[in-house]
Amino acid sequence: MRREPVLGWVDGENMALLTDLYELTMADSYFRRGRNQETTFDLFVRHMPPHRSYLVAAGLEQVLYYLAHIRFTQDAIDYLAGLGLFSREFLDYLKGFRFTGTVWAIPEGEFFFPKEPVLRVTAPRIEAQIVETFLLNTINFQSMIASKASRVVQAAQGRAVVDFSPRRDHGADAALKVARASYIGGCAGTSCTLAGQVFGIPVYGTMAHSYIMSFETELEAFRAFAQDFPTNALLLIDTYDTLQGARHAIVVAREMEARGHRLRGVRLDSGDLVVLSREVRKVLDEAGLSYVRILLSGDLNEYKIRDLLDRGAVVDLFGVGTEMGTSRDAPSLGGVYKLVEDDMGPKIKLSAGKVTLPGKKQVYRVLDGQGVWKEDVIALEVEEISFEGEAYPLLVKVMEGGEVVYHLPSLKEVRSRSLEAVGRLPVRYRTLEACPGEELPVKLSPALKGLTDKLIETFRDLELRT
Amino acid sequence: MRREPVLGWVDGENMALLTDLYELTMADSYFRRGRNQETTFDLFVRHMPPHRSYLVAAGLEQVLYYLAHIRFTQDAIDYLAGLGLFSREFLDYLKGFRFTGTVWAIPEGEFFFPKEPVLRVTAPRIEAQIVETFLLNTINFQSMIASKASRVVQAAQGRAVVDFSPRRDHGADAALKVARASYIGGCAGTSCTLAGQVFGIPVYGTMAHSYIMSFETELEAFRAFAQDFPTNALLLIDTYDTLQGARHAIVVAREMEARGHRLRGVRLDSGDLVVLSREVRKVLDEAGLSYVRILLSGDLNEYKIRDLLDRGAVVDLFGVGTEMGTSRDAPSLGGVYKLVEDDMGPKIKLSAGKVTLPGKKQVYRVLDGQGVWKEDVIALEVEEISFEGEAYPLLVKVMEGGEVVYHLPSLKEVRSRSLEAVGRLPVRYRTLEACPGEELPVKLSPALKGLTDKLIETFRDLELRT
Repeated sequence: MRREPVLGWVDGENMALLTDLYELTMADSYFRRGRNQETTFDLFVRHMPPHRSYLVAAGLEQVLYYLAHIRFTQDAIDYLAGLGLFSREFLDYLKGFRFTGTVWAIPEGEFFFPKEPVLRVTAPRIEAQIVETFLLNTINFQSMIASKASRVVQAAQGRAVVDFSPRRDHGADAALKVARASYIGGCAGTSCTLAGQVFGIPVYGTMAHSYIMSFETELEAFRAFAQDFPTNALLLIDTYDTLQGARHAIVVAREMEARGHRLRGVRLDSGDLVVLSREVRKVLDEAGLSYVRILLSGDLNEYKIRDLLDRGAVVDLFGVGTEMGTSRDAPSLGGVYKLVEDDMGPKIKLSAGKVTLPGKKQVYRVLDGQGVWKEDVIALEVEEISFEGEAYPLLVKVMEGGEVVYHLPSLKEVRSRSLEAVGRLPVRYRTLEACPGEELPVKLSPALKGLTDKLIETFRDLELRT
Repeated sequence: MRREPVLGWVDGENMALLTDLYELTMADSYFRRGRNQETTFDLFVRHMPPHRSYLVAAGLEQVLYYLAHIRFTQDAIDYLAGLGLFSREFLDYLKGFRFTGTVWAIPEGEFFFPKEPVLRVTAPRIEAQIVETFLLNTINFQSMIASKASRVVQAAQGRAVVDFSPRRDHGADAALKVARASYIGGCAGTSCTLAGQVFGIPVYGTMAHSYIMSFETELEAFRAFAQDFPTNALLLIDTYDTLQGARHAIVVAREMEARGHRLRGVRLDSGDLVVLSREVRKVLDEAGLSYVRILLSGDLNEYKIRDLLDRGAVVDLFGVGTEMGTSRDAPSLGGVYKLVEDDMGPKIKLSAGKVTLPGKKQVYRVLDGQGVWKEDVIALEVEEISFEGEAYPLLVKVMEGGEVVYHLPSLKEVRSRSLEAVGRLPVRYRTLEACPGEELPVKLSPALKGLTDKLIETFRDLELRT
């Protein structure tokens, strides 16, 4: 029998099954045993990924959508029933499943550090458990990309950076979310057309070598494109010889001027970008075309961009693909989701190197008199605490009783917040190397420290007992 | 005004816009100029990623779905119109857009090498151009994961490997497709429940530390889970002390036996897995529980698995997450999509290090008398060619005139094909290091070599002329 191909994408309808199977088996066990008391889980990163000195929060909007809309469809329940694992009562319960909890979060665009809760979820145990996988998948991925993009944007020193990564991203959702998260990190836009439609992100495009090659000569190709896109022509000039390409671009730019238009730019994608960009800039300027912008691309990342600029490349925009879209030097972010409180009180986990901070917490961001970031203090929510200098709580309530209670900023506002927030970091945090040998100024409040120490002692006693 | 959160996933309806903007601007230019002649593009990988000695093809089924279903919805066209870039005529053309081309492909599960076309697309230029981004995104990602998984499976030497990666994968689609592609690479299943529903992949799950911690004692937790899942209990024994955990598991296993059930296994997620797995196996065996299986997990990859086995770890299953789901040591595959023929004849691109093989091609796989892979020969499609030994053409016709003409194998069949195909590789290709200093036996046929040389000469002449 002939089988039709399956696309296999996730849609809102079946996002509830985007969860590890064990979340559901544990949930069934809790359900049968009536262990559905209120719990609090923190989502946080244990360790800074290699080379990073800060992280940028991203993904909250998708988390809120998910929590507000998660449902188990009849198809999903039929599938689960077919596994022969679950109790009939639990499957019935899933039919009416809603997320009814309360969520606090670090807003998208803010920087954060290991140990700080990015999300704090308080909900009946079963609800809190089932959503774990999706929350981790979303926050880990988007924050990783926003953090990487922020580094690339810092390295570009004010020049625009555009996401060119869709063909190398990890699937369809990744192409869309890399555009979103890299825009949050400070990029100017993306080549991903769908991200333009879905998120309103500015879209950019130039042309491919195959376009040039489809014409008899390069000049002919440039002429055709300039005629077809008189206000938006960015010519790829390295197909045959970059300087010859620049001269062809000049011919076309003059023809455009005669028609009352302006060539937007030229793109260099190969060769010695320092030498070539300087020479291209020179011939363009000599031709009176100082308004024509230069875009550089070709396996760029933050280190290569820094190096290009240090060595005197002349450039207005960078197109960055694979390295940013896969966060190539650190392609995963190890966020975890841990129980920190239940009906018995604050909880702690104490495996080697895996300490969890107990209780419901708040993070305070402390700035010095000049508005520069000084330190973060992780404290208990109930704790009254005073600071030297300006301080504000980082976690805000975004959901209550399963309803979004957060005034969602636009993506443009989130991007501005990230650029502004990262601008408050001392310069040594904005370099591309992790602050070597330096402990991050992320402190525990006295009450949190006290609670942690107390629980460690209790835990040791318990361990002897088990 | 309050804004509702946006999920921003891709669905079949709007997959047409999952394309780089320049594909559409180029297409508009071709459209206006009537340059919509038949073209042929090859999708191939230029260079082997680090450490790899072979690649496994995956993603074809999603490519076929996409090509058979791609449409521009009115919303998509309205969005494009709003950009102010496109001609009205082109937007009208997009309303009726269909992919009408012919596609040849290396079947999923077969191994392949750089320079070999994984896909060969023959279609009017505009159609071939617009689908580029999606084809690259899909084949690059799934083949990268299938290749990584195949290495992990090889390292596990017959033990089952399960995908535990959803929380670290790059978004929702990635979680689903990592499950698919790693199953193709030889994994036994996945923790991703949705992949079970959508693709019929076997799903696996154990329990989290938070489950254990939600009970007063570990023993109580184990008892509860064993009661709730009598046929499917896999107990996580490292929350407090692994050997103590093993003893608790033995107590519960005996209680299960008394009820006529069997404990399926225990899981170790931390500590010295060699020493601990041996000791756990010993106490289990001494308790007459040799049927209880041991699952090891915890930031594993192919190197760590090899090392664990070399050092004598005793294990039945491996749970592998982040490292496989992100292909951490090589998190991108650099597949490209290049014009190789148009109405003017075979085409070549000749940038430094970026030679494209011209013309419509076939790849022949040659085996020696023992069924072991000997070499591949890339030839012109029209060429008649004879081989010493058994040889078969690797590219099969999967689509003609926009219709799927391929008998799609089940995912299980694809997985078997990959295990069988990789088994035909000489052992030195199945080690974890790339064959150092050794040229891969991938040859060009005489006619292809001749055509390439001829076009290089013509091209040099052309270059002098431009």
